[in-house]
Amino acid sequence: METGISGAVWGQVMRPMRRAGRQVGVWLGLLFVATVCLQSMVAVAADAPLPSWNDGKARNEIVNFVNRVTTTGSPDFVPAEERIAVFDNDGTLWAEKPVPFQFLFAIDEIKRLAPKHLGWKKEQPYRSVLAGDLKGIEASGEEGLLKIMMTTHAGMTTDAFAGSVSNWLKKAKHPVRKVPYTDLVYQPQLELLSYLRSEGFKTYIVSGGGVEFIRVFAEQAYGIPPEQVVGSAGLVKYQNGSDGKPELVKEPRIDFVDDGAGKPVGINRFIGRRPIMAVGNSDGDLQMLEYTADGPGARLAVYVHHDDAAREYAYDRKDRLAKLDRGLNRASAKGWVVISMKNDWKTIFPAPK
Amino acid sequence: METGISGAVWGQVMRPMRRAGRQVGVWLGLLFVATVCLQSMVAVAADAPLPSWNDGKARNEIVNFVNRVTTTGSPDFVPAEERIAVFDNDGTLWAEKPVPFQFLFAIDEIKRLAPKHLGWKKEQPYRSVLAGDLKGIEASGEEGLLKIMMTTHAGMTTDAFAGSVSNWLKKAKHPVRKVPYTDLVYQPQLELLSYLRSEGFKTYIVSGGGVEFIRVFAEQAYGIPPEQVVGSAGLVKYQNGSDGKPELVKEPRIDFVDDGAGKPVGINRFIGRRPIMAVGNSDGDLQMLEYTADGPGARLAVYVHHDDAAREYAYDRKDRLAKLDRGLNRASAKGWVVISMKNDWKTIFPAPK
Repeated sequence: METGISGAVWGQVMRPMRRAGRQVGVWLGLLFVATVCLQSMVAVAADAPLPSWNDGKARNEIVNFVNRVTTTGSPDFVPAEERIAVFDNDGTLWAEKPVPFQFLFAIDEIKRLAPKHLGWKKEQPYRSVLAGDLKGIEASGEEGLLKIMMTTHAGMTTDAFAGSVSNWLKKAKHPVRKVPYTDLVYQPQLELLSYLRSEGFKTYIVSGGGVEFIRVFAEQAYGIPPEQVVGSAGLVKYQNGSDGKPELVKEPRIDFVDDGAGKPVGINRFIGRRPIMAVGNSDGDLQMLEYTADGPGARLAVYVHHDDAAREYAYDRKDRLAKLDRGLNRASAKGWVVISMKNDWKTIFPAPK
Repeated sequence: METGISGAVWGQVMRPMRRAGRQVGVWLGLLFVATVCLQSMVAVAADAPLPSWNDGKARNEIVNFVNRVTTTGSPDFVPAEERIAVFDNDGTLWAEKPVPFQFLFAIDEIKRLAPKHLGWKKEQPYRSVLAGDLKGIEASGEEGLLKIMMTTHAGMTTDAFAGSVSNWLKKAKHPVRKVPYTDLVYQPQLELLSYLRSEGFKTYIVSGGGVEFIRVFAEQAYGIPPEQVVGSAGLVKYQNGSDGKPELVKEPRIDFVDDGAGKPVGINRFIGRRPIMAVGNSDGDLQMLEYTADGPGARLAVYVHHDDAAREYAYDRKDRLAKLDRGLNRASAKGWVVISMKNDWKTIFPAPK
């Protein structure tokens, strides 16, 4: 604290104290130095970034990149306001099997809403959903899937939709793993997000999933606030409700698909700056990684490779929902970072609370 | 600093110092208290928020609102992450007469590009633009205006467009006031933005103007980074350029109009939280103010009223481009803050540098 007391006054005050304290001062100094040294060593061990990451190529490239862009005077230094890092969500920050969780939300919503729609028992694709008949849902084709999504994602206010997602997340469990969906975030990625933020990065989600869906849990699950979530969106209309109060209503029309070539478009639209780091896990992230990697200065493009059938899932070139094929080729040609979940991550999911 | 030295050791070390220092300690204490008091008084005078605002109703209501939402324990306390304040741009943060400056940019761009388009001398609305014939431009109607905007705002990469805006802002001068456009920001609003940020608010622009236009100068002019600018937008396409490099190209199609009922939609889309404070100056901001004011807890809706023909402009209920009519009625019915530029602002524009 700066008290504003002049040097002369300080000298007058301190002289007698200094005289008395000179001898003990020496001991005090030594004790102080020893304590600080010890604490620093402990702190280094505890604060080493990315504790759930094995010491390998992927971790080293990430840490080296962060050091280069954050070290003042480094030729690759990037001012804090331009340290934008973008992350895909499904399969990059949390699991996405057997199908992206937002679709499982839609299925559960159909079941929850069914008592108010008695005709659904006879109408496809609802009949198949209510009967738990996955093949029947699949047979209903794109039209059927769109119907499921629109019924559960449109025709209500944005607040009501957020409430449904929030309630679902509290109660629903993953069909195979039997844990809440938000337990299926990747522990090493939580550490990466938090490490980047501690180094002055602004972390964003840029997802093909619905922006209004992800915003409900992104802050709690990842420390990413709503305004830093970019995603696909339905049309929203502003109107005065039956009680005259203003409300935003979700309409049954797709407005923006934040996938593939849509991802750089979404980044430009929402963020207005080219990121310096991008992380994805499928060909749907390829353009986002290309766009990021192609900017001037230091850039980091990262793919998460699902190669861990034992602890999570193994899928890539032939997967139907989240293919990583052209992306793997591009990563290899361009020298992008490819995270092996099997080899680079000590753990996949956070320890149970 | 916590050194980790135990209390017993501290006691042993401090005892002789304390003995010697007891007498001077009393003086030291008094000196310290006096100094802090003096400094606090000086600080209050120097740091009083909104120095260019007269001490009146508008200023008081704003300061009271900020105090209520930022005081821990106040029934109206709002956590920092939810302190979102949104500002219209044209007529709210900078002037908008004789026409919004983005349109003057388009006119100047037509002139700059004309040597490469010899046919324009015979084609409307370009002929009128090149002849400086404002009536001719007006006679070309909506179609003509759209043509002017599309020619100057589409068919180039987003980077090239930002470059044109940036060059224009450096050289262009306001047709009447003969100063750079960025000199026509409102000094009292710069103070308001900076006061809100110092109180933990996140300040956003939510403008009917083009998002790619405003982002070029918002950071320097207002301290608002690109990711906190929401605005109207043309369609943007991601593609690989002729050199194979990825690029974002502005297409000649309007994608989103962030005006009127579009403003709450834009806020929801980009920010994903309802603001607690909104500032506008025309009926195009009415829905944004309504949406903001209607949320739970403390809310502040503010209109800037252009009633200062001597220092700026006077226009409201009958203005063709930026009518403030229904808004004034609503403000009066709801008790919203109405800033009189004439009475509430000591100065309009910043002092020349």
